[in-house]
Formats: sequence, structure tokens, C-alpha cells
Amino acid sequence: MKLTELGGEGALIRRIARRPRAEEVMVGIGDDCAVVRIDGERLHLLTVDMLVEGDHFSRTYFTPHDIGLKAMESNVSDIAAMGGRVLYGLLSICLPGDTTVSFFDELYRGLYDVADRYGFDIIGGDTTHGQQVIISVTLVGETDASRLRLRSMAGPGDLIAVSGPLGGAMAGLRLLQNGVEGHADVKRHHTSPRCDMDRLDRIVPIAKAMEDVSDGLASEVHNICRASGVGARLHSEQIPLCDAIRETAALLGDDPLEYALFGGEDFKLVYTVSPNDESRVCGTVVGEIIEGDSVFLDGQRLTRSGYDHFTGSRTIP
Amino acid sequence: MKLTELGGEGALIRRIARRPRAEEVMVGIGDDCAVVRIDGERLHLLTVDMLVEGDHFSRTYFTPHDIGLKAMESNVSDIAAMGGRVLYGLLSICLPGDTTVSFFDELYRGLYDVADRYGFDIIGGDTTHGQQVIISVTLVGETDASRLRLRSMAGPGDLIAVSGPLGGAMAGLRLLQNGVEGHADVKRHHTSPRCDMDRLDRIVPIAKAMEDVSDGLASEVHNICRASGVGARLHSEQIPLCDAIRETAALLGDDPLEYALFGGEDFKLVYTVSPNDESRVCGTVVGEIIEGDSVFLDGQRLTRSGYDHFTGSRTIP
Repeated sequence: MKLTELGGEGALIRRIARRPRAEEVMVGIGDDCAVVRIDGERLHLLTVDMLVEGDHFSRTYFTPHDIGLKAMESNVSDIAAMGGRVLYGLLSICLPGDTTVSFFDELYRGLYDVADRYGFDIIGGDTTHGQQVIISVTLVGETDASRLRLRSMAGPGDLIAVSGPLGGAMAGLRLLQNGVEGHADVKRHHTSPRCDMDRLDRIVPIAKAMEDVSDGLASEVHNICRASGVGARLHSEQIPLCDAIRETAALLGDDPLEYALFGGEDFKLVYTVSPNDESRVCGTVVGEIIEGDSVFLDGQRLTRSGYDHFTGSRTIP
Repeated sequence: MKLTELGGEGALIRRIARRPRAEEVMVGIGDDCAVVRIDGERLHLLTVDMLVEGDHFSRTYFTPHDIGLKAMESNVSDIAAMGGRVLYGLLSICLPGDTTVSFFDELYRGLYDVADRYGFDIIGGDTTHGQQVIISVTLVGETDASRLRLRSMAGPGDLIAVSGPLGGAMAGLRLLQNGVEGHADVKRHHTSPRCDMDRLDRIVPIAKAMEDVSDGLASEVHNICRASGVGARLHSEQIPLCDAIRETAALLGDDPLEYALFGGEDFKLVYTVSPNDESRVCGTVVGEIIEGDSVFLDGQRLTRSGYDHFTGSRTIP
């Protein structure tokens, strides 16, 4: 049996995850980050992500600087999604034998630009050679127990909010894939996304469950619902869309809402809040948590259908 | 200019390493692990290594279980080389789309077998797809300041010791590459190496500088010398060779000593001790640290010439 027939990345995670034996490991495989208690309230957050040429980026559309930016920023987003800040990073990078020094330097300039933006050090690296450009980023972050936000912390009655407009990354990808000239601002959403670490101090005090939008809003809301044992209702007219993507969608005959729901890689935060905190929401309320285990969009049951980095399928229904 | 023309992995490291800005980062890019002070004497060790199909392993010679074992064991060796024990690991794995479930399960069985052997948890993972099997392992270890051993801690007059016999991994690879039947014990040195974590408690109390033999004894002694600002003399007749590799070398027309000096992947420890501690050496004394910056073998100057994982060159002079 092929691994691709197992049912995607979630099925793989369930296959390999084990209950950690060490008491200090509070969360293992399965959330945006692992969580380890260092002492008392002090927690470390650990995350690793591998970006593969042809899947997460293309050397046709991306400058090497963009590749570095995106690889690092998407990992910073995972630390933000748990309520943390980054302490340090480690890299392992696979490069084809014909890679130029200027490609290497530009790639690292992108990686370091993000590290500088958030004020952390890159403390380890391994460079090897292979057929594709592949970048694995490990980040260690920290938070304290009172700021930790997990997928499992949502409850019925919570409002669901997103920290910023969605769909831009998929719109940019669609323009690039279709060879459409211009629209540089939309394309940048795909090639150099920016996470919402800077809004975290306004979000953490009110957030209950939280996650970053790496695989599309539908997929992330499903993750929160499954981890919290709840359902959700989303309202399409409330979902904030990035500027200019309606124009992109019209041009390509797509539905812009599908970019937001199923596109992924927007790296905004999706989080739940108590209705009492509605006036303090940073971003936009897009729905609410309900009893049950189903996610509804405008009253219709919504399937998961985000981007799956193992099967490579990006299902737009 | 191509990256391969820069002068190997050492040149890449010098190109990307920066002085860490955070005070708690004691060692950044350049040793076996990065070292971060957690509080007081308590230190974390962090290492990342990427193993690429066709370079570090071959699916022709390795079972998927072997691949998992080697990927994890070689990283445990880096933690041992700094005087630490492993706390937890994170994985990112790239697999071709036609990978079977049984390959995946066996790969993870190998990874978990090593984690179980040393009693640590695998707390994070990312699985994605690409053209080759690529495994990046990040380990976090711990030690206290009094047990930390760096490459830079050698001084003139120190004896140089190795914790076990060398050359087996290269001998095994040569047999496999030449399609020689039999010799399973020698081949196992290449396909499932074992590091010397278990001897660490006997070595740390006497060791000054330490490193693991991942790229060949010549390369590792050069690393210690450069980091410590010293030279070294090695004595070929004292270098312990793995059982049966003289037979392998004779069969293939090789010099078995070159397996030990330039082959790499033996994952034994090379360390320096004060002459006063000679009687307590665990393993074998193979030379001594001298003033200067040159490494001599039997009075002849020895070039670095280990295996370089970026250029893919394994120079046997």
C-alpha cells in the first residue's frame, strides 16, 4: 500500500505520534509546536518544517531571497500560533551540486532577514547536496504557561476570529501558475508571506484556542474542532479577503472565497474568544464554536479540504 | 561561481556563521552542537543533521529500518561529543510519492528504536514529498557546564585518544559499493553504526577537547587543532582498526588505515586528555597535541581530507 493512499498528513501523524514518556513534555507531535516545561511556568516551544522545491516554492517564481524569507517566516508563524516568541533557529539545507554562491548568499540573506526582524539567532546549520532545494527549519521558542494557546482550548459559544485578510497566498500562486503578468502585490502574498507575530500581544490576552492559517481556514477550523471536541459555524460574508483578490479570481474564473478557505499559506492567526471579548477582537469575527463535530459554512456542512503537503493535493471542491 | 568551488563545508560554515546576539547562546554554528545556557550551570545542546539518499545512505544497501537507525544514531553521536544526553528529537522527512506504508513504518521503527535505546521522546515531525528520501533530525540535549566538552579545549602536551576502533564504516561502504557478497559484520558498520554514548561517563571526567568521528579521524583532529589553536602528531600503528577490515582492504586493494583516517561515519569519540590521565583513558591513545597548527602522521604532514558532505568528495590521498 502506498503512503499517499493512507489519507494525508493527518493520518501519518496519527501513525507515528506516541505519548511522550518524559513528564516535562506537555505536547508532542500534533499541534503547531511541541511544548516542553523548562521550569515552573517557563515553557519551550519547538517546531520543525521542511520546505521542498516544487511543492512549497518554485525557483521559477521565487528569488533565493524569497525562499529564505518564506522558509523562516512560515516557521515563526508556528511559534506565534502557540503564543510564543522565537529564541533561536537551526537549519538544514539540501542544495543541488550546481548551486551558485550568489544563490546560497541570497537564500541566507532571506533567512537572516526574518531572524533579524524577530530578533533571534540562527545557531546551527547543516548543508548537504541533493537533487532539489530543500530547507528544514527548526525553531525553539518560549512562552509562559499563562500565554500558551493550544488547538484544544475552544469551547461552545466561543467566537472564531482571524487576525487578518486571507486568500492572498493562493491568489498569488494562481497568478504565477497561469503566467499572468503584473499583479505584483498579490503575487507577494505567495512568495513572501508575513505572519502575525506583531499582533500577538493584542491577541493572546483574549484568545482561547489558536492556530495559524497554513493549510486554509477550513482545514485549521477543523483542526481546532477536532482537538477541542466541538463543531463550528462559519459565515462566508464575514471572512476578510486580501485586497485585489476578487479581481484575480474574476480574471481566472475562480471563487475568491475558496482561496481563503482552501488555499493556505496566509499565516494569519485563527483563534477563538469568549463572546464577552468580542469588542477586543483583533481582526475579524468569522463564525462561532458550536456543540458537535461538524463545521458548517452558511449552514452547509464543510469538508476539510485544505492543502496536504504529503499527498500534494489542494482540493478545491 | 559554484558553491562546490568554495572549498567545502567548512567554507560554507564560515560564510554563514554570525556571532550570536543573545548572551545565553554560548556556542553557535561551528561545533558538533550549539550550546545555550538555560539557567545557572544547566545547558541545552542543539544539533541538526540532514541525511540524503545517495549520499549518506542508499536504498539499495539499507533497509528502511537501517536508514532510521543511522539517521538518529549519527545525531545522538553529536550530543555525546559535547558531553551531553539527549532530551528529545524532532524530525522532518521528505519521501517520494511512491513510498509504501511499510517503508514508512520501518523507517520510523528505526528512528524510535534509537530514541528508545537512549530513553528520549520524538516530539515533533513534518512529512512532505519530494524526489529523494531525506531525513533531517534535530536533537535537543542537556549537560551541565562542568561536563561540556568543546573542540577548542585542547592544549599542547595533551594525549589524543579514540573511544573505539575506526574504519569499519568505510570498509563496509567499500564492500557494498563493490558488490562483494558476505562480510555482513563489516557492512553493518556502515548501515547501522553505533555511537559511544554508553562510554561517556568514563570519558567526560578526563576529556578536555572532544568530537565525534563523523568525517574521518584526520578531519576531526584538524577540527580540534584549528578550534584550539594547536597542532597534533598521530601514530599510525596506534590507531585501532575495526575487526576484519584488514581483510576487506586486502580484498579491495585498499589501505585499511585510510578507512580510519579519511572514511568517516564511525561515530566513535576522539578526545584529548592530560598525560596524567593516561591510565584512565577509555579506548586507545593515538597521538598527542603539539604547538603549531599542523597535523602530522608518523612525522609526515597530514592534510584534512575527510568526507565533505557538501562537495560529496571523499579524498583518499
